[in-house]
Parts: sequence; structure tokens; C-alpha cells
Amino acid sequence: MVQAYILIQTEVGKASTVAETINKIPGVIQAEDVTGPYDVIVRAQADTVDDLGRMVVAKVQQVDGITRTLTCPVVHL
Amino acid sequence: MVQAYILIQTEVGKASTVAETINKIPGVIQAEDVTGPYDVIVRAQADTVDDLGRMVVAKVQQVDGITRTLTCPVVHL
Amino acid sequence: MVQAYILIQTEVGKASTVAETINKIPGVIQAEDVTGPYDVIVRAQADTVDDLGRMVVAKVQQVDGITRTLTCPVVHL
Amino acid sequence: MVQAYILIQTEVGKASTVAETINKIPGVIQAEDVTGPYDVIVRAQADTVDDLGRMVVAKVQQVDGITRTLTCPVVHL
Amino acid sequence: MVQAYILIQTEVGKASTVAETINKIPGVIQAEDVTGPYDVIVRAQADTVDDLGRMVVAKVQQVDGITRTLTCPVVHL
Amino acid sequence: MVQAYILIQTEVGKASTVAETINKIPGVIQAEDVTGPYDVIVRAQADTVDDLGRMVVAKVQQVDGITRTLTCPVVHL
Amino acid sequence: MVQAYILIQTEVGKASTVAETINKIPGVIQAEDVTGPYDVIVRAQADTVDDLGRMVVAKVQQVDGITRTLTCPVVHL
Amino acid sequence: MVQAYILIQTEVGKASTVAETINKIPGVIQAEDVTGPYDVIVRAQADTVDDLGRMVVAKVQQVDGITRTLTCPVVHL
Repeated sequence: MVQAYILIQTEVGKASTVAETINKIPGVIQAEDVTGPYDVIVRAQADTVDDLGRMVVAKVQQVDGITRTLTCPVVHL
Repeated sequence: MVQAYILIQTEVGKASTVAETINKIPGVIQAEDVTGPYDVIVRAQADTVDDLGRMVVAKVQQVDGITRTLTCPVVHL
Repeated sequence: MVQAYILIQTEVGKASTVAETINKIPGVIQAEDVTGPYDVIVRAQADTVDDLGRMVVAKVQQVDGITRTLTCPVVHL
Repeated sequence: MVQAYILIQTEVGKASTVAETINKIPGVIQAEDVTGPYDVIVRAQADTVDDLGRMVVAKVQQVDGITRTLTCPVVHL
Repeated sequence: MVQAYILIQTEVGKASTVAETINKIPGVIQAEDVTGPYDVIVRAQADTVDDLGRMVVAKVQQVDGITRTLTCPVVHL
Repeated sequence: MVQAYILIQTEVGKASTVAETINKIPGVIQAEDVTGPYDVIVRAQADTVDDLGRMVVAKVQQVDGITRTLTCPVVHL
Repeated sequence: MVQAYILIQTEVGKASTVAETINKIPGVIQAEDVTGPYDVIVRAQADTVDDLGRMVVAKVQQVDGITRTLTCPVVHL
Repeated sequence: MVQAYILIQTEVGKASTVAETINKIPGVIQAEDVTGPYDVIVRAQADTVDDLGRMVVAKVQQVDGITRTLTCPVVHL
């Protein structure tokens, strides 16, 4: 199981609806609005890094209003 | 009361009108054009962090010509 | 109550001990190692934005091996 | 007269004393701690751009604990 | 002969087709999807730096879905 | 007299025509295509910082294909 | 098997020896000097994302002269 | 012949002496202090990209007070 934070930038004025929509995607644990260089921070999980990459491209990035996503896989050192 | 600087990037050629429009938003103390990585720097205030976030999304980001905003809340250490 | 994500960059080779140490700070909910532009992502909470700022400066940034912290307060839009 | 915002990054744990010290520099109108990618935001003024540059290098950057300054001159478009 | 890495950001949801298309461009050795601040990393070669620049502008940047490319020429120190 | 470098990012595929067009703007000394995080680097001059800001907004940023400009005024320390 | 690009920034003047040293680390396929915002680009592989993270922290980041590493895992979409 | 801009960040308070010292390096055409995210902008030339890389590492980066250099080769598209 791979977990990750996904740091998201949205189009201006879209942060709230983006977070709401992402919260409904399977594999997403939590999506919250934040201030600063990112607009939404998501916590998600998938079986493998490839599954995680596919989930970001096929599900998260399909949400209207997203301009950039930055996936940060959690590592256990 | 929470105060914040909002660092704004605009579409090319829009900095001047963006600053003028933002100056009329309630809660905005000052909006000025600058050179460098940001185009407009705003000083604003609201009752809470959540109010500040709502003001940025619902008022500031609705101004035509803005591409990114970066909110930096003032903290009293 | 204010919640925030704190995105942390560490000195090379220090990510693991930084996360361990931060996990023991009161107010920190979770601190995890990640790959990408940040090395550790922390979730924390405090009573006010000022308290949060003080906690970051007085507690988190005192941890040996941290080079930059980026605090992103959660907002409820 | 040229005015500018100076966005400052400090060593971890130094933001508060940096802001206090900068507030005493002639030409500085205000220096405040903020959260986000910058730690202190300063508003300053000088007679010319060259004077402003000299003030930043000779006065502001001499303050102990500063790692980067980003000067954004205000422009009247 | 000049070799280079080209770090590419794509529109959301376009990383996969961008990598596939770039892989067919003459001079491209390999194009792969990655996670993090870039979406696709390409390895390419050309006769001179000018040829490399022309290849990026005339071939790589013509691929639909690319928003930014960052060319990093390999140097032999 | 104020001189400045203007670091420019263009839409993909537009760097060459952007540089050509900017070279014809009064006050521009030289505009060249480069590789790296910027696509075109311009050297320009104006009477004051305000004039320089106006020239960037009213002339340079009007050139089709520019997405971001970063003005770096030369200072004599 | 997980593959990744590791984008490395070094202390000034250290790029060449950093690349040489990294080339000898087991799991590193290739390490090359580049110009641009990064100084060395490495291609590496490991069994899992956790192994990759451990390799970066325990081996790559121990090399003298490295200031930042940015790990970009390859994903197969 | 390859020409390049070298964008330089210096330690705080060192910009002026860095520019002076770089101006004496063979192959450097001009080095000037600027405000913004960079502190000194250099124009240089060398016979090949490899020579340029060697010049940056062996000469420019040896100057005391430099923390980062970003080399942007000029390309003729």
C-alpha cells in the first residue's frame, strides 16, 4: 500500500468546489482547502506507485478547476 | 482580527486594472503594483483565518486578470 | 481551533530523525517522510493563527536538521 | 522617492528577532512576521532604486538570521 | 553532439499521451512519466546547442498538452 | 536612467517570435532566446522605475505569446 | 521494481565530484552533470518506493557537497 | 562560440563584491547587480557548452559569496 499527499493548485475561485469533488474519489482519505502556494491538500492511498500515478491522472486531474498537482509519496525510512 | 499580505500574479498587461479593482474590495487596506515575481501586493484584514480565506476566494480571486494568489497571514510571535 | 499542514525541507540525510522528533511535539497530529520538493509533511493544530506561528517558530523550527518550513493553514470556505 | 516591499526568508527560529531588528533601520516603514514561503515582509522607501538597493545590501541584509531577500519595487502604472 | 534532459509540465490529465507522442520525435532517446513537480522527463540529443533549442521549440513544444519545458544540457566537466 | 533585465516565459513554441517582436520596442537594447526556466532574456532601459514598469506592462507584455515577465532592475551598489 | 530520476543541487563548485561519487552507488544507473536549476541528474532504481527513499537518504544524500535532492519516481500510466 | 546568461544568488551582503570579482574572469562580458530573485546577472561566452560548464564550475562558482548559479545558454532559433 502506498500513501501520498497531493498538493494542488486550482484556478482562481475554484478551491472550494475542487476539494469537495476530490473528497468523493475512491482512495482519497481527505481533501482540505489551505492558504499559501497550494490551494488544496489531499491525502490518498493506492496499492502501488503506478496505481497512485494512474489515480492522480485519471481521477484527480479530471476534476474541473485544477491547474497543477504535485504528488508526494509517503516513505518509511 | 487577522491581517495578511496577498501576493498576486496577473495575466500579462492586467496588473494596473487588477490593483485598482482590488482597492475597492471591503477589507482591503491597500493594493499596489510591484515589479518582480509578483505583480500586485495587497494588504487585507478579516475577523478570522476562515473569513480571510473566504474573502480571497469570493472577492479577490473573482477580479478579472488574476492567475495566482498567495496569502501570507501576519503572525505576532 | 486552527489546523495546518507544515511542509518541511531538511538538511540532506536528516529527514528521518526530523520526522521522529516532530512527532513528539504537543499540537502535532502526524509527521511523515515524503519524497519530492519537501522531505517531511506535518499536520498540526493550535488555538489561533498566532499560536500556530509561535508553535512553528518556538518548537518545530528548533528541531535540528530543518532548513525551511512552509505553513499552510487549513481554511473552511 | 521609491517604495518597495522586501520579502525575507530567515534561518529557522529567527523570524521574530529579524523583524524586530529591521523595524529599527531608517527607511523601513514596517516589518512583520508572516507564515508561508516568506518569514518577514518589510515595507521600505528610499530616494532612488540605487539607494534602495544599497539600503537592502548594507542595512537589511546585515541583520543576523536572514538567508534571502527579494526586493519588489512599487511601480505607479 | 549535445545531450540534454528536458523536464516537462503538462496540462492536467495529459501526461501519458504527451510522453507517448514525444517518444516518436527523432533525437528523443526516452520519454517517461514521473510524479513530482514535473510530469514527463525526456532524454534527447542534437548536434549543437542551437539544434537542441530548435528541436525543443519546433518539435517537442508542438506536442499538444505541454505547458512548460525546462531544458538541462548535459555538460562534461 | 534605469536599466533592467526582463526574464520572460513564453507559451510553448512562441519563444522565437517573441524575441523578434520585443527587439523592435523602443527602450529595448537586446532580446535573446535562452534555454532553462526562462525562454527570452531582454535588456532594456527607461528614465525611471515607473517608466520601466509602464514600458513592461504597456509594450513588452502586449507581445503575443508571453505568459510571465520578471523585471530585475540593475542597481549600482 | 521502482525507477526514479533524482534531480540534485550541489554546493557551488562540487557538481563534478558529486556526480562521480554517486555513479558508484549500487542502484544508480547513471549520474550526469547538467546546467540549469539542477547540477546533477541521476537515474536510479530500487525494489519499492520505501527502498528508493532509504537509498536516497542513506546513500545519495550522504555524498559530500549535495544541498538538495528531488526524487521523481517513474510511473507507468 | 556559445554565449550564456548566468543568474546568480549570493550570500546576503555579498552581491557587490561578487559582481566586481566576476567581472575580472576571462570570458565574462559583463556582471551587474540586480534586485529581485537573483542578485547578480552575468553575460559570458565560451567555445562550447562543455567549456561554458567548466568555466562556471571552475571560475565563477569559486568566487566567495555565491550560493547558486543558473546558467541559461543563448540559442539561435
